[in-house]
Amino acid sequence: MGATLHVCTTCKAGEPVPEGDVPPGARLHAALTAAELPEGVRIVGVECLSACNTGCAVSLSKPGAWAYVYGRLTLDDVSAILDGAGKYAASPDGIVPWRDRPTVFRKQSIARIPPLEAP
Amino acid sequence: MGATLHVCTTCKAGEPVPEGDVPPGARLHAALTAAELPEGVRIVGVECLSACNTGCAVSLSKPGAWAYVYGRLTLDDVSAILDGAGKYAASPDGIVPWRDRPTVFRKQSIARIPPLEAP
Repeated sequence: MGATLHVCTTCKAGEPVPEGDVPPGARLHAALTAAELPEGVRIVGVECLSACNTGCAVSLSKPGAWAYVYGRLTLDDVSAILDGAGKYAASPDGIVPWRDRPTVFRKQSIARIPPLEAP
Repeated sequence: MGATLHVCTTCKAGEPVPEGDVPPGARLHAALTAAELPEGVRIVGVECLSACNTGCAVSLSKPGAWAYVYGRLTLDDVSAILDGAGKYAASPDGIVPWRDRPTVFRKQSIARIPPLEAP
């Protein structure tokens, strides 16, 4: 199994979203799915990553690896998110060397969760 | 496999930690491991959950379930954390009904990550 990029489709990015408007999270999800995906990455929309104070938010996870959550993302970050997701997918344990991570991943990490297999 | 409560042992809780002092995260880890654990919960210390802005932080995860990260925790929260961890362990999918969650879990969620098996 490759990496899953979960994208919160309900994120309001801290702004009021008028009724009928598409939330920023849904816009980010649409932009990501419209782009060319790196090898080994699938995108799955999800309603709420419980990171409402730091939206838009996405998570990266795969079996046996560290999982990451990133926040305060915008449409400007689409290519960086996919770049980072591709590197995450290619890494054995989810840990991409610091120097290889896109800036948005270096600076906007909300949290990471160790693999369940960790001692 | 039961639930794993990962506790960040390096969390400084936003305060300077003088050299030689035990970081707040390590104190929280020690207090949690010294308490009586709920059924199905194991505690694992981890160096950095990348939630440094919202420490002390812990995560809850188990196979096939949503994983959660909580932050801004103190030694006063030990019993609430263990109460919530026990309910998490007992839930089929990691989602504990809102009314049953300890207040600290309701108010101090940093993020959650869907199970990999989700569609």
